[in-house]
This record gives sequence, C-alpha cells and structure tokens, in this order.
Amino acid sequence: MARKNKPIRSDIAWSTPDRIFVRDKSLPDEIIGHLNLGDFAYLQLTGKSPTAAQSRMFNAILVTLVEHGITPSAIVARMTYLGAPEAMQAAIAAGLCGLGTVFVGSMEGAARMLYAAMPESGPRDLPAVARAVVAGFRERREIIPGLGHPVHKPIDPRTTRLFALAKECGFAADYVALMREIGAEAERASDKSLPINATGAIGAICCELGFKWQAIRGFGVMARAIGLVGHLMEEAEHPIAQEIWLRTEDEASAHLRGEKLA
Amino acid sequence: MARKNKPIRSDIAWSTPDRIFVRDKSLPDEIIGHLNLGDFAYLQLTGKSPTAAQSRMFNAILVTLVEHGITPSAIVARMTYLGAPEAMQAAIAAGLCGLGTVFVGSMEGAARMLYAAMPESGPRDLPAVARAVVAGFRERREIIPGLGHPVHKPIDPRTTRLFALAKECGFAADYVALMREIGAEAERASDKSLPINATGAIGAICCELGFKWQAIRGFGVMARAIGLVGHLMEEAEHPIAQEIWLRTEDEASAHLRGEKLA
Amino acid sequence: MARKNKPIRSDIAWSTPDRIFVRDKSLPDEIIGHLNLGDFAYLQLTGKSPTAAQSRMFNAILVTLVEHGITPSAIVARMTYLGAPEAMQAAIAAGLCGLGTVFVGSMEGAARMLYAAMPESGPRDLPAVARAVVAGFRERREIIPGLGHPVHKPIDPRTTRLFALAKECGFAADYVALMREIGAEAERASDKSLPINATGAIGAICCELGFKWQAIRGFGVMARAIGLVGHLMEEAEHPIAQEIWLRTEDEASAHLRGEKLA
Amino acid sequence: MARKNKPIRSDIAWSTPDRIFVRDKSLPDEIIGHLNLGDFAYLQLTGKSPTAAQSRMFNAILVTLVEHGITPSAIVARMTYLGAPEAMQAAIAAGLCGLGTVFVGSMEGAARMLYAAMPESGPRDLPAVARAVVAGFRERREIIPGLGHPVHKPIDPRTTRLFALAKECGFAADYVALMREIGAEAERASDKSLPINATGAIGAICCELGFKWQAIRGFGVMARAIGLVGHLMEEAEHPIAQEIWLRTEDEASAHLRGEKLA
Repeated sequence: MARKNKPIRSDIAWSTPDRIFVRDKSLPDEIIGHLNLGDFAYLQLTGKSPTAAQSRMFNAILVTLVEHGITPSAIVARMTYLGAPEAMQAAIAAGLCGLGTVFVGSMEGAARMLYAAMPESGPRDLPAVARAVVAGFRERREIIPGLGHPVHKPIDPRTTRLFALAKECGFAADYVALMREIGAEAERASDKSLPINATGAIGAICCELGFKWQAIRGFGVMARAIGLVGHLMEEAEHPIAQEIWLRTEDEASAHLRGEKLA
Repeated sequence: MARKNKPIRSDIAWSTPDRIFVRDKSLPDEIIGHLNLGDFAYLQLTGKSPTAAQSRMFNAILVTLVEHGITPSAIVARMTYLGAPEAMQAAIAAGLCGLGTVFVGSMEGAARMLYAAMPESGPRDLPAVARAVVAGFRERREIIPGLGHPVHKPIDPRTTRLFALAKECGFAADYVALMREIGAEAERASDKSLPINATGAIGAICCELGFKWQAIRGFGVMARAIGLVGHLMEEAEHPIAQEIWLRTEDEASAHLRGEKLA
Repeated sequence: MARKNKPIRSDIAWSTPDRIFVRDKSLPDEIIGHLNLGDFAYLQLTGKSPTAAQSRMFNAILVTLVEHGITPSAIVARMTYLGAPEAMQAAIAAGLCGLGTVFVGSMEGAARMLYAAMPESGPRDLPAVARAVVAGFRERREIIPGLGHPVHKPIDPRTTRLFALAKECGFAADYVALMREIGAEAERASDKSLPINATGAIGAICCELGFKWQAIRGFGVMARAIGLVGHLMEEAEHPIAQEIWLRTEDEASAHLRGEKLA
Repeated sequence: MARKNKPIRSDIAWSTPDRIFVRDKSLPDEIIGHLNLGDFAYLQLTGKSPTAAQSRMFNAILVTLVEHGITPSAIVARMTYLGAPEAMQAAIAAGLCGLGTVFVGSMEGAARMLYAAMPESGPRDLPAVARAVVAGFRERREIIPGLGHPVHKPIDPRTTRLFALAKECGFAADYVALMREIGAEAERASDKSLPINATGAIGAICCELGFKWQAIRGFGVMARAIGLVGHLMEEAEHPIAQEIWLRTEDEASAHLRGEKLA
C-alpha cells in the first residue's frame, strides 16, 4: 500500500540568492555575454560548451531550421493569434504542435536509419551497407527518410551548403558518407531524382555530432519557435489569417448552401 | 453578399527550386555558416542583420531566458512527455502555453511602462518621470513590472551583468536609466528591497534596441523552447514526472479516501 | 530559509482498488449509465447533479458551442493533424489555443458586464441600468460584448431558441431581461442593427444559472473540443489542410518570387 | 509548374443569415434543446443521431473518460494556469497534449487489436482467436492493450459497469466477447491478474458501435477537456500548482546547491 517516495533530481540548474548556475557554469559570469544562443543551446542539451567547430556546425543546423516560409506551422500560429492575440505563447505553442512525423520527423528518421545501419566495428563497406538499407526500405515499401523534395530538385541547396560546412568543420565522416551512398543507391534503384534534402543532411550531421536520434526533433521545434515569433510579428502588422479563414469557410460550405437554397 | 478577396502576402521568405531566401538573404549562401542562431533570430524578427553590438546584446538577452531550473514550464513539459513520448513537440508546446502574464509578462510590462512614460521630446527629467510612474502604480495598487524577486535579493545577478553588457555595447541610455530610477524610487516609496530583476533589465534593454513591447514575450517563448528540449532530454534518461505525479495524486485525495473509508 | 510545505488537496475525485468516486458520487454506480455527458459536466463543474431544468438548459448551451463550421480553430486543428497525424490530441489542443478574447471571450464579457451592472438589491430599473451600461461602453469606445454578428442579421436564430428554452426552463429572469434591454438600448443609441448573438444569450443565461464569469470560457473550450474531433475525422477521410496550405504559400510569396526572378 | 487548385469542401456545417445547419439538422430547431451533449457528439462524429441504445452507451463511454483525479493532465493544466490565468484555453490545451500513447492510447490499441483479430466471416472460434492474439503479443514481448491496472485489481469496477450496460443496450456481441477471452487467456498464459480495464472495455464497445479505431483517442480528449475545466475552476479557488512547483524545485536541485555550497 504505502508507496515509497523516489528522489526527484535534475542536474541542469541551481541557484542561491546571489548565484545562478546552468550546467555547472555561472549564468551571469560565464554564459551571458560569452555564449551565443546556439552555443548555449549546445551546452543546455549536452552539458558541455561546444568547440569552435561544434559551435559553427550546430548553429548552422539550427539556423537552417528556423524559417521555411508559409508552412502549416506558420498558418496555425497566425490563425491562433487571430483568436487570442493576448496569448502569443499559445499561438507559438499551437504552431509547434504539428511538428510531428510528417515534416520534422524525417530528420530523426534519417539519423535513426544511419545509426541502425552503421557497422559498429570492423571494415565499413558503405556502398554495401547502403544497398542493404535501400533494399530493406523498398521491400517494406517505406519511404527513405531524408531523400527527395517537392520543390528543391535536382539538388537541395541547403544540403550542398551543410555538407560543405561539415567538411570544413571536420564532421563529414562515415555517417555523411553513408547518407550520400544511400541517396545514390536510392536513385539507382528507383530511377528517380532523390536528392538528399536538408532533413537528411541534418540527420547525418547530427550522427557525426553524436546526438541521439530521439533528441533531433527537438532541434526543429526550438528553431521553429524563433521562426514563428517572426511570423506573428508580421501578422500583427500585416494580417493574413482572417483572409485565409474567410476564403476557406466560404468555399468549404458553398456546395451545401447551394444545394439547400437552390 | 459577394466578399471580395484581399491579397495574402508575407515578406519573410521565398524559394524556387534552386534558391531559398529569408529576409532578402540567401539562406544557403549568406545565412547558414554565417549567422549564429541569435543573429538569425534578430534578422528574422527585424528584417536586418544585427551589428556586432546588437548581436552581442541580443544573444545575451536570449541566453538569459533559456533556462530557469525546474519551473512550472519544465514540469509541464516533462509531465506531458510522460503521456506522449512519441510527440516531443507537443510536450514543448504544452510547456510554452503557461508563459503568460505571470512569469514572462513582466518583460513586456516593463517595456510598455518605459515606452509610455518616456517623454518623446524636450528635456527628460528622469527622476521626476520615475516619481510619477511609481506614484501611479501605487495609486492603482498595481505591481511595478520588472522589480523584486523571491530569491535573488538584494540584487539579481543577471541584472548586474546585463546592464554592464548594455553599457559596453552602447545600449545603456535613457530607458535603462529610467528603469534604474523607477527601481530606486519604488524602494524609497515602499521601504522594501525591490531590485530590478532580469525581466526588468531585459524590458529596458529591449526598449534601447527598439523592439515593440508586444514582441518581447516572444523572446521568452523562443528561448524557453530551447530550455525545454534540455529538460525533455534529461527526463528521457532520468525521469521525475511520474514521481511528481504519484506523490501529488496520493496527497491530494488522501483526505477524501480517509474520510470515506474511516 | 526553510520553506514550510502547504497541503496539496483536491476535492474532485478519489479511488481505492474497488471504488471510484467523483464529486461524492460512485462513478460506476451513480454516474455511468445515469448521467449524460452534459449532466456530468455540470456535476464536475459545480459539485451538484443538475435538476431537470438545469440539465436541459446546460446541455443546450454546450450543444450550441460545439460546431461553427470552418472556423480558425477547425483550420488550425486540421493543419496540425497534417503534420502530426499520430498525435490527434495535439491537433485538438492546437485548435483550442485560439479560443481567446476575440471569439469565445464575448461570452464571459457579457456575463461579466451583466454581473457588474445588476443592482444587488432594491428595485431594479433595468432600462435605466441598460442606459448606463451602454453609455459607459460608448464613452470608453469599447464594443459591447454579446451584440452583433457578421452573418446572423437581423436576428441570431440561436438566441431566439436559447431564450425560448430559458423561459421554458425558468431561467429567463433579470439577467436575460437586462441583456435584452442592453441590446435594445445599444440599437437605439447607435442606430445600427445589433442583435443579441449566441454568446450574449449564453452569457446572460450563465448568469441565471449562477456560473462565475471566469468559468464560462471553459464551456466554449470543452464544447469545441468535441467539434474538433469531428473535423479531424473528416480531415482524415477528405483532407483539405494541404490544399489550404499550398494555395496560401503560393500566393503569399508570389510577389517576392516575381520581383526577384523578373 | 502551375499547380491546379483542388476543391476545399467540408460537409459538417453551413449557415445563412437566418439558418444554421450541422450535419443536415437545423441547429436552433432540431438540435438545441433536443439533443444532449453526448448525443450531439455522436451526431457530429458520425453524421447520424444516435438511437436510444446508442445514446445511452455513448454517453456512458464519454462519462467514464471525463475525470480521473489528479492525473498528469490535471497537473499540467493547473501549472499552466498558474503562469497564464488569462488564457484558460491554453491551460486546457496544454493538459490535453499529453493524452498520447501511454495513457489514452490503450483504448485505440484495444480496438485496433480486436478489429485486426476478428475473422471477417465464417464461424468465429473466439477462444482460438484469443489464444493466437495473446501468443502473438507474448512473442513480440508487447503489452496487451486494455488489460491490467495499477490500482483497480482484481477487477476494474468501470469495466463491470460498462459491460453490463453494453449487454442492456445490445452492444455485448463478438468484440466484447473476444476482449473477455483475450483477458482470460492472458491471465492463464502469464499467471498474473490482468483485469480488463476501462480502456479495454471502451475499446471493445467502440468496435461494437462501429467506430474506427483511429477516432477513439478523440473521445478521451474531448471528455478530458470537460474534466480539466473542473480542475481549473478548483485551482482558481484552492490552488495547488504553486505548492507542487516549489516543492519540486527545492528537492530537484538540493543536491547541486548542497555540493557547491558545502
């Protein structure tokens, strides 16, 4: 009957009246004014300050994820703001709720695929690994995460840039190579243009950086939160949500009104 | 009857198969690898790249807002993750929903107060302005935003640091001075220790940077999104949400169970 | 330093291995199969089972709030589902986030106005009260909550029905009368058609039922949650979110693409 | 290049200045005052008014899901309200975000399992089907959805009641029988007490009612929205969120403060 309490502990932060520490660093003395936002994100997530190369690479990944134009997320945030402008945080929250398996999920999917496929030791015949991976996805009739893009064809320009940066920063090792092999093999096997898209590039580089695949969706969510603030600031000055709503409402029920009133 | 469509326009981003522009800059060529996350946030929100001073100051503000230990937001995100670990984005969204008037709202409150009080032109007698502001709040029996802290007394160490940085970066002008005057006057008038807290310091500096007060809550929301990802990563490895829940549930209904079963 | 714990108590529910009680009633024996959903909502919110008249009236109020066609909420839920179909709860949550001051807020606004204006005792000269209320709103240049509708003119058919039911059920007393007086006076003063809309009718009847104005937004939120489930079920079979998104995205950035590529 | 617009249609509702129809019924004339909230939910979700038996059964299912005491959802809603009392809708939304696979998911899991296992035609040897189902779950080392409860042992009193009602209402046919067989077989195979819990009973009855398994999570979400409004109303009068927060914060970082300050 009597449940025994277990301890409740978190190692992220602590404070006293005159001190505030996050991840073992003094927030006022060692973080504010010393780390940029991306670097502090790295510290918050890993417990360690990034090296110069990690800082450059991780900031580049996050920056890629901030803004993608008028996405479903941006429309959702703007529509929510229309009804509750006094609760901007709820509009951002609503916009983030849809960052699930369909859009953001392919980053974690790519990383998961690469981690699962990469031989832990011994010689790594990456073309052979890629063939096995692609054959498996084709057999299961599943889409290979991180490949293909409805607009950015035949090449996703973000991938080119991210892989170039990864090379500069020393993060273009076996996971990036395997992602490239999988992309090439998938194009061969399907006879379609299947460029590695930004989510595939980011998934591979996150493996190089040693992030768990489960954490990667969080990068998309936190970056998009920034983007959504920008959309809400524009919505406040040049609103579009009401127009989208009214057009949609009119069109969606026109057939019913027409039938009934005819 | 017939509604006339209005145009739907956003000036934030556009893309073609081989190009992606955000705020008139090429994402692959001018942003990725060139701007850190805080700088890109500045660009996304203002349409302009920050100067070196703006970059330093804005990153410092955001960094201050990322992580505040086991806050209600962090508990909410962890509790939500307990029920839906497959939807990390929903846990972050839930955690952000409570960043309303009580906690994060004092930043915008401070900025709003400072903007409203600052004479637009002519000589600025800031001590007199501060006396009028404080008298007004006392008369309306309202709390002055940005002053006082339950833990960080007699000084909030983040404020010291942020104001020092503001001075270094050239952002310690009249709004910061007015905030200080208001703090001093409030202490005099109430005979209580009312240090300018981090939200007051940030509110004042945001005025110096020229941000609308309506945008400032968004800074807290986007920074906290980063912090919450860190909490969820810790929760995944060292969970505490279930223990908080079970203890609370046990205690909350013990009196009912006891009465009824006695 | 040492904080003293305060008790944590909730009086809503308790259970033991073989018993489950909500609001002092046995869930299996006295609630399941005995109370309909609206009645149980009444019990959950007030701690008492409704009388037959209260049941009829409260169910009618909730039923009125469930479904309003393709509202911003419905679009938000559908758009969120597009990105995260595996997390239906997050789509509903996103849809609810916008039920703020603009749409749902006028119910609580109407109730608050009526509670504030109604003389607590003595003779109630409702036309005089209404004149004072309307004059106050006009002076402050604020919109009177619960009046006017963009579509349902000159009469909101839900109001007619709700007020008829209120009369049948014995809930058409002074608050309903005052709401009518305020509507009539507002039309006189503004020389515009200002029918009492459904939110005004509900606000007034909620006063008759004795609900605090702070609770009323919750009625809209819980009813709309039901409506949104219906929208998501339709979206799963006959999706429209992607089409709304693609049209919006195309149009919103066409001017930028055009300018840059010209 | 030029995308062709697809139609945007919804069949749920339509209105004109003097008419409002939902699911082909006049909201003022045929719904308000005629259908209780559960009945209207049934209409909204299925397009048809429920029969008396369907009404009784569906209301009973929803009623079972409204209130489960101080759950993670309730704590989340209360904690969110603490920070943003002006946005009750966001507190409810936050509370719903965690209704994912862990808690609410077992209803849809049970229904999905039953639909998949039930032979479409021919004689139905339910004990043999149950043996195959249980053997499959044991082989895959997966938990059978809808069985077992941490508190309600050896019997979940809601299940007893729901199955009795199902019998009364004519909904205790093969799916309910199969669920019972699976429960019995699972107990035999595991030699543990594995009562059919409320989610298993609801999953089975939802199959009898003909609902798609994908819709069932929505029932939990909409019912819980009602429960959460009750929790927020109690929180407004007798708050517990701050106490939960402060205790948790103190305990969670005590080890860090202690180490560093020792």
